[in-house]
Amino acid sequence: MNYKRSDFLSFRNKIDNSQIDQLINKDLLVSHKCSENFDIDDISSLDILKKNSILFSDVLDFDYTKILNKGNIHFVTSNISLVKEFELSNYSLVKNLDISYVDLINKIFIHNDSIDFKDDFLNKNNSHISKHASIHPSTIIEPNCCIGRGVKIGKNCIIKSNTVIKNTILHDNIIISENCTIGSTGFGFNLKNMGALNILPHIGIVYIEDNVFIGANCTIDRAKIDSTFIGNSSMLDNHIHIAHNVILGSNACIAAQTGISGSVKIGKNLISGGQVGIAGHLSIGDYVVIAAKSGVTKNIENNCKVGGFPAMDLTKWKKSIIKNR
Amino acid sequence: MNYKRSDFLSFRNKIDNSQIDQLINKDLLVSHKCSENFDIDDISSLDILKKNSILFSDVLDFDYTKILNKGNIHFVTSNISLVKEFELSNYSLVKNLDISYVDLINKIFIHNDSIDFKDDFLNKNNSHISKHASIHPSTIIEPNCCIGRGVKIGKNCIIKSNTVIKNTILHDNIIISENCTIGSTGFGFNLKNMGALNILPHIGIVYIEDNVFIGANCTIDRAKIDSTFIGNSSMLDNHIHIAHNVILGSNACIAAQTGISGSVKIGKNLISGGQVGIAGHLSIGDYVVIAAKSGVTKNIENNCKVGGFPAMDLTKWKKSIIKNR
Amino acid sequence: MNYKRSDFLSFRNKIDNSQIDQLINKDLLVSHKCSENFDIDDISSLDILKKNSILFSDVLDFDYTKILNKGNIHFVTSNISLVKEFELSNYSLVKNLDISYVDLINKIFIHNDSIDFKDDFLNKNNSHISKHASIHPSTIIEPNCCIGRGVKIGKNCIIKSNTVIKNTILHDNIIISENCTIGSTGFGFNLKNMGALNILPHIGIVYIEDNVFIGANCTIDRAKIDSTFIGNSSMLDNHIHIAHNVILGSNACIAAQTGISGSVKIGKNLISGGQVGIAGHLSIGDYVVIAAKSGVTKNIENNCKVGGFPAMDLTKWKKSIIKNR
Repeated sequence: MNYKRSDFLSFRNKIDNSQIDQLINKDLLVSHKCSENFDIDDISSLDILKKNSILFSDVLDFDYTKILNKGNIHFVTSNISLVKEFELSNYSLVKNLDISYVDLINKIFIHNDSIDFKDDFLNKNNSHISKHASIHPSTIIEPNCCIGRGVKIGKNCIIKSNTVIKNTILHDNIIISENCTIGSTGFGFNLKNMGALNILPHIGIVYIEDNVFIGANCTIDRAKIDSTFIGNSSMLDNHIHIAHNVILGSNACIAAQTGISGSVKIGKNLISGGQVGIAGHLSIGDYVVIAAKSGVTKNIENNCKVGGFPAMDLTKWKKSIIKNR
Repeated sequence: MNYKRSDFLSFRNKIDNSQIDQLINKDLLVSHKCSENFDIDDISSLDILKKNSILFSDVLDFDYTKILNKGNIHFVTSNISLVKEFELSNYSLVKNLDISYVDLINKIFIHNDSIDFKDDFLNKNNSHISKHASIHPSTIIEPNCCIGRGVKIGKNCIIKSNTVIKNTILHDNIIISENCTIGSTGFGFNLKNMGALNILPHIGIVYIEDNVFIGANCTIDRAKIDSTFIGNSSMLDNHIHIAHNVILGSNACIAAQTGISGSVKIGKNLISGGQVGIAGHLSIGDYVVIAAKSGVTKNIENNCKVGGFPAMDLTKWKKSIIKNR
Repeated sequence: MNYKRSDFLSFRNKIDNSQIDQLINKDLLVSHKCSENFDIDDISSLDILKKNSILFSDVLDFDYTKILNKGNIHFVTSNISLVKEFELSNYSLVKNLDISYVDLINKIFIHNDSIDFKDDFLNKNNSHISKHASIHPSTIIEPNCCIGRGVKIGKNCIIKSNTVIKNTILHDNIIISENCTIGSTGFGFNLKNMGALNILPHIGIVYIEDNVFIGANCTIDRAKIDSTFIGNSSMLDNHIHIAHNVILGSNACIAAQTGISGSVKIGKNLISGGQVGIAGHLSIGDYVVIAAKSGVTKNIENNCKVGGFPAMDLTKWKKSIIKNR
């Protein structure tokens, strides 16, 4: 899942961490500490820490402290207890984490996923393809597609008509069917600060492994920071929604109109019926079966079968149906 | 929400109300009264009455009578008791209201929302844009879009790839994501008279206020007569369906795959989970919270939280789940 | 529903049935019998048997035996008891039916539904139309559509912007709204053999009768072998999913976001609410009413009204709701 963020976006301002207290909106900053000076080259998440980067979080384990200090990672938080508890070399304490995130990311990165018309595009078979995309010649791009900057598509893929792919890496032998939207901005924002102007910057990508099949009219949103991930040989039916930061293991089989909320992590060999909904931030194990129309509201262990809403053990659910009749 | 209907369509026949008894299919007309002669310039609804217009309805309050008579509004109804009860100056009593609506509107207006190829179009970045659309130069239209006659788009909007916008007014700072269909014909017809040839003419628009975010692969249908409305700073996730005549207040937050049926009126600051369905013609108050996967079948008061199907008070629903286990 | 398969695809290899034992992957073949030699011109299903064809099935009634033998239909099965029980003149016994199907069909037919760029295309009003499609001049194709090889569209249809139509026959007076995907490959594969490379070949079509209305952002998948069928005057709202092999009778009215699984057969005059799901291979009678958000898991008789999940008699369901409160 490694990728070079700069393939997909450009730096707006080359800054080092000592400048953050100048860059951030003054009303947001509480305190600022900068023991080492280093360039901010990228953005870290708690999952993937990168050298010379900035990390926004209101939670932190002690184990992270050394990594942050050694790796030149500037930590931004609104949680004063973290600052007190851990000996962080480089941090900014802020009043509101989400607003600080929007403010700083907008000042450092070009994160907008709209097509950059300063970019050069080819019109090939009526599709609009960025010259900064990399597409293997064995791959077929059908008409009326739009392929954005930085997109990589491997061998022997078929991108069917009227599909949009931005901020995405595709391996080999993948089929993306018609009218899909892959790699657009996720639905992330702060309820106290609504509207298109305040959507949280999404600067991650979508990463799809070999041999995946995506049906028609599906949406897979780019991650906020890292990658929304679809593991190899997974099969998605039509009208499926995969939100930002979802990790879907290999060999998943998901029937139509299912929606998976943000940051859900799913193991390998999921079988899901149609019209299923999975609530945000859940962990679903390997070899899980979810009956059609289920609403999953809790984590699911390996090898479990669930059904109903809220989803429960499949056998219990079937019994409860009979009882309730 | 005011707009000039003629920006979006053209008159087929310039008629005055005295001609209606000649225009209408003879089998449909029962009786006809025409005390004043006036041009039929527009169409009224019970919500928005317009001078020199025609109004189709089988319900009417006494209060309306004077407005209709003073405003030169020709009333068409199949409800004989309204004609007997109220002293209307100008009316047509018909056998079937829906069929009379189709018949007359088709004879007076060009209502079809299909692209008019006699219209002039620009091809800009591979998007097809009517010369009779008005788009602020600061707005970005990505490739493979289609923008129809009369559409107005304000400042600093982003219309992402492969989105279709017809019969719509957009204010400023709006993002419409990829593969959306905004302003197409709603799903209105008479069950006794089915088929594409008999779909009720939709000649209203979609009206979207400042700072709204619409996710990918959403549909928002034009109103039958007035406006389908999305209030400022509302946030819609992917795969959302907003039917004709819906009024959605400001600051709504709606998760993916939710569907709102025709003519639902929703107050401000709605929070709705994903895969929610709301039945037609309901009224939902301000600051309402609807849990994911709920099916709303009744009106909801201000500040209420509901869940389940049929949706009930959220606390009660949670208790009923525990009990049913 | 008759059509000429060769309009939509080309033969890869002209073979006769005696060559099947050479053509099939050796590891798959158990035994092979070939009493008559005949060309393999087409593929049969149990529903539609065609002379000089190949039929894949693990079930068979005795009644079929004579038809197969007389009609020059080569039978491929992994069910040894069928071979023992019936006196079939021409058959191949295989280890795995699905894998043999993929193997042989891929060797005989070009089944891929991706646009064939060796085909000639016209660019008309920014739509990409195969020269091997047949479209009546009275029909409107809006911009950014893609119409594939063999597609037939009758009189007075409207194909709205950004819609893709492949492998489909449309009669007259049909409206297909924006961003639809009609005739793409269905979601058919073997759970033991996943991935885009192993999707079961779909070489059937979509067949839509007069006066049908399809809303925006719908998907209707082509049949595996025969036809996915929508009967005349049916009305489909937005975001509807119709899977492969579905037969939908005339005058159906289906509200938004409903999904109908593969091989469901539905009679005439269905009324379905929104967000309904119907499980695969069910039979639904005539004049059936399905309440919104229902999940249908069993066959439904004529004139029945059902609701809930699993869907039950509508009156009983309403009572059970009251009781459970």
